[in-house]
Amino acid sequence: MAFDAIETPNGTSGKIIGGAGTYIAWAANHLMQPLDIVSVVGGDFPEEEMEALSEKGVNLDGVEIKKDQKSFYWSGKYHQDMNTRDTLVTELNVLADFDPVVPEQSQKSNFLMLGNLNPGVQMSVLDQMKKRPTLTALDTMNFWMDSAMTELKKVIARVDVLLINDSEARQLSNEYSLVKAAHKIFEMGPRFLIIKKGEHGALLFHKDQIFSAPALPLKEVFDPTGAGDTFAGGFMGHLAHTNDISFDNMKTAIIMGSVLASFCVEKFGINRLKEITDLDIKKRIRRFTELAKFDIPFD
Amino acid sequence: MAFDAIETPNGTSGKIIGGAGTYIAWAANHLMQPLDIVSVVGGDFPEEEMEALSEKGVNLDGVEIKKDQKSFYWSGKYHQDMNTRDTLVTELNVLADFDPVVPEQSQKSNFLMLGNLNPGVQMSVLDQMKKRPTLTALDTMNFWMDSAMTELKKVIARVDVLLINDSEARQLSNEYSLVKAAHKIFEMGPRFLIIKKGEHGALLFHKDQIFSAPALPLKEVFDPTGAGDTFAGGFMGHLAHTNDISFDNMKTAIIMGSVLASFCVEKFGINRLKEITDLDIKKRIRRFTELAKFDIPFD
Repeated sequence: MAFDAIETPNGTSGKIIGGAGTYIAWAANHLMQPLDIVSVVGGDFPEEEMEALSEKGVNLDGVEIKKDQKSFYWSGKYHQDMNTRDTLVTELNVLADFDPVVPEQSQKSNFLMLGNLNPGVQMSVLDQMKKRPTLTALDTMNFWMDSAMTELKKVIARVDVLLINDSEARQLSNEYSLVKAAHKIFEMGPRFLIIKKGEHGALLFHKDQIFSAPALPLKEVFDPTGAGDTFAGGFMGHLAHTNDISFDNMKTAIIMGSVLASFCVEKFGINRLKEITDLDIKKRIRRFTELAKFDIPFD
Repeated sequence: MAFDAIETPNGTSGKIIGGAGTYIAWAANHLMQPLDIVSVVGGDFPEEEMEALSEKGVNLDGVEIKKDQKSFYWSGKYHQDMNTRDTLVTELNVLADFDPVVPEQSQKSNFLMLGNLNPGVQMSVLDQMKKRPTLTALDTMNFWMDSAMTELKKVIARVDVLLINDSEARQLSNEYSLVKAAHKIFEMGPRFLIIKKGEHGALLFHKDQIFSAPALPLKEVFDPTGAGDTFAGGFMGHLAHTNDISFDNMKTAIIMGSVLASFCVEKFGINRLKEITDLDIKKRIRRFTELAKFDIPFD
């Protein structure tokens, strides 16, 4: 949970609410409740934002508030293609020495989503779980591969699902073919690999099974920030809601993640995720179905 | 119809048979017959290659043989990622002054595929048609956009389907969003736009409808040469066979194109396309169906 300031070719956001935990919660709460967050914010984090999450059935007991410190702050500028960006400012603030505390009632959660953060923090949360969750998913990025690969691999070894993008899958496995990359990553621990490809959709690998999910082509990507977190939130939200980790239900979960991510990019920050209704989501699911379905008439 | 010499990280092909027309014919003939090619070769083009096509029901009356000249020759080297390549040699030879002649029996064809070539040659073929085909498709590339945009736009104005890749769609339309690009390209003439995205699959645009086709993730892409031509051949082959240009059947045609392209890249040149059977194709179609299908259980 953090502050972002975003520049895109469409405009500047000013200082707005961001953070992997925020996006994951706003995505998942459309699909399931209750949902517990473990995070840290400073005294500058707006109380009304916490209340807005609370009202949606999000339990914030695991969010530490360090009143005399400032929340994490990131500022970035997207290039014309919206796929690449420059970081302008990173202020760790409360994240510099974040020591997460998982509240007792969250220690037996069945679905655990470890958002993109320092692998040490992710490991600490894993260590505090009193039983092995039905499913644990980990989101990470090239930054941690470059700076903390040893630590990261230890966490990866303990999760069921790894979510990364295609270049990160190649970096982690040292294989160009994503099929080969998936099998190398399975040897590292995870049973499921999700490769996020932005405008090209997502791939799910499990044993020898593969699912390819489309992305919805959009007239305009307004702000891609948080799309990956939102995807993860939608994915885990659907699985937690249905309590079914079959490969077929994981496919559906990936579509739910893609649906929520397709809303996320339509406005700055979490604004679009906050306003969408169940009906908006159902309509968008239908567009995904239309987008991907085809018939093969065998002769 | 031409000679290629290909270097990939997997090895070198030596001088082998290539050319858009060859790939299109070898792909399409798995789905429909008869098929007429209009092309030009030199006296060096192997007679047994012509015979192999003839035996498969391909009509070569429109292939001019310039006995005292050499066939077009291209040599290229792929980088490690198999998506980018350097051209090592281009010898136009018989293509330098190619003046295509469409035989009388081909002038009333219902399905016309204009392979990737000089737009002037494509226009000459169009001009020789005695009636407007049910469907005309055009494949082209950035090389012609850079060197002959005015000529190219005149041909584009007269076709129903344009096949290009994503960066070419952006170059042609001057729009980054592929949705916006599609609508600008519709204003140029075509009613259908197919955007080929290689390992990321393909998109079909028509009015406000969009179809997203997956690509089959492969353990190894042995040689990507001709994959786009093969895709075009499979696409048009299916449409010609079924004589149905509804949007739903175009979706199926795109899957057929993707299926054939997924074979093409498994060996050098046309080798894999030559050896696959109907059963191989049916099995591969099933893999595409498994790859893309998902269920949405509405609550």
